[in-house]
Amino acid sequence: MSGMSDKEDEKKSTKKDEAEIVEENGLVYVDYVGRTKEDGEIFDLTLEDVAKEEGIYNDEESYKPMLVAIGKNWLLPALEEELVGMEVGESKTVEVPPEDAAGPRDPDKIKLVSKRQLQKQGVSPRKGARVEVGRQKGIITNVLGRRVRVDFNSPLAGKTLVFDVTVKGIVSGEIDKINAVIKRRIPGLPEDKYDARIEGGTVFIELPKESRYIENVQYAEIGIARDTLKVIEEAEEVKIVITYERPEELKEEKETQEDEENEE
Amino acid sequence: MSGMSDKEDEKKSTKKDEAEIVEENGLVYVDYVGRTKEDGEIFDLTLEDVAKEEGIYNDEESYKPMLVAIGKNWLLPALEEELVGMEVGESKTVEVPPEDAAGPRDPDKIKLVSKRQLQKQGVSPRKGARVEVGRQKGIITNVLGRRVRVDFNSPLAGKTLVFDVTVKGIVSGEIDKINAVIKRRIPGLPEDKYDARIEGGTVFIELPKESRYIENVQYAEIGIARDTLKVIEEAEEVKIVITYERPEELKEEKETQEDEENEE
Repeated sequence: MSGMSDKEDEKKSTKKDEAEIVEENGLVYVDYVGRTKEDGEIFDLTLEDVAKEEGIYNDEESYKPMLVAIGKNWLLPALEEELVGMEVGESKTVEVPPEDAAGPRDPDKIKLVSKRQLQKQGVSPRKGARVEVGRQKGIITNVLGRRVRVDFNSPLAGKTLVFDVTVKGIVSGEIDKINAVIKRRIPGLPEDKYDARIEGGTVFIELPKESRYIENVQYAEIGIARDTLKVIEEAEEVKIVITYERPEELKEEKETQEDEENEE
Repeated sequence: MSGMSDKEDEKKSTKKDEAEIVEENGLVYVDYVGRTKEDGEIFDLTLEDVAKEEGIYNDEESYKPMLVAIGKNWLLPALEEELVGMEVGESKTVEVPPEDAAGPRDPDKIKLVSKRQLQKQGVSPRKGARVEVGRQKGIITNVLGRRVRVDFNSPLAGKTLVFDVTVKGIVSGEIDKINAVIKRRIPGLPEDKYDARIEGGTVFIELPKESRYIENVQYAEIGIARDTLKVIEEAEEVKIVITYERPEELKEEKETQEDEENEE
């Protein structure tokens, strides 16, 4: 990943490196703050200091630059397109109209629901409460006698979004791309613990046996394979390999048995 | 696995095949019923019909011949030793004294516990109730005023065990051995879905990507690797490999992008 360290920027300051311009199908790290245009409310962001300033910091979130494969819908496509041609370190404000974001607000998605139905679920029917009815999420907009009005539109429906986005780095080598994808899916695993190589159309990813103890690692593997096939376009398949060496105690057992056999 | 089908037995009936005698370090399937000598109570068994006859059938158990690597303590070592030299189809009654089974009964493991302590855990202090105190499992043997006497010995401590054991089959090929080990750890995965091969000191085990959706499959893999290193003594390492081919929808995406690039 280039451009993340100041030193590297200095070294290359005289000549613009090709890898410092975001390409179509590129893999980049970005920081962003997403706000609604209407009222400036932040709905998503990667910057810890902004989250704290605005009083929306959540200590269960991890605030760090987000990995984005351009054109793969890891962000809104309209936002990804705008990144192409940007330089590392460059910032931009991108406005995304509702039709390219959460879609228009659909009046048919505003429905009347009986209070009794919500009370059965243990939800008290008051304005602003979030509810789930028939697997659809909504928000109560009005309380009317025995019923409430629920808006099942996405909270961002009908809204123009404004992103302040900064390109933090470009991942350019194939192996670096695979490593970035692994890091995205298993952030807790130190980088020196895994290894990737490409042989013909096959990407081999070696994960350490310690990775077996990471919760849901088998689903992370599915994601790693899928992401790898997206960012390495010439790859036909991904093989995830976990190696288990013979442990010391089984080596001893083996030797003991061989000794016993020799004695017979 | 030989000896499981009657046809095979008929074919080989004239001459005793080597693979029909259980060897040291062999891998075999056995059926058994384990009883305490004292009162004939069954504490473990693999036979569904016996379980039903004796009224101890449990529909959460899977009754089927058990895979045993001789000398690896998958059963009591004293019982495993007795299997060596037996023929496929042969049955035997094996008596195991307490010192080779659950050990002697230790009077120091009988302790007084306050009723209040048990009641805090929601256990009613009555004779015969199973309790757990400080991670040790025990059984209440007496109720005395404010306290109860709890025996923390294993229920089989001090008891001689009697096993009726039958050798159901011998797994003789290396690949068959690995397949048997996989089946033991992931019984739900059809045999034609996985594959094993040996190259030098490395055993390669290919699991299908569908296996990722099996609960706790990552722990099953640790077990498969460990068991394989036990039954394949010349193996230095086991590599578990899961292959993810490029899915159809990503193939289309790739072609579309290439087309777009060509048009430019």
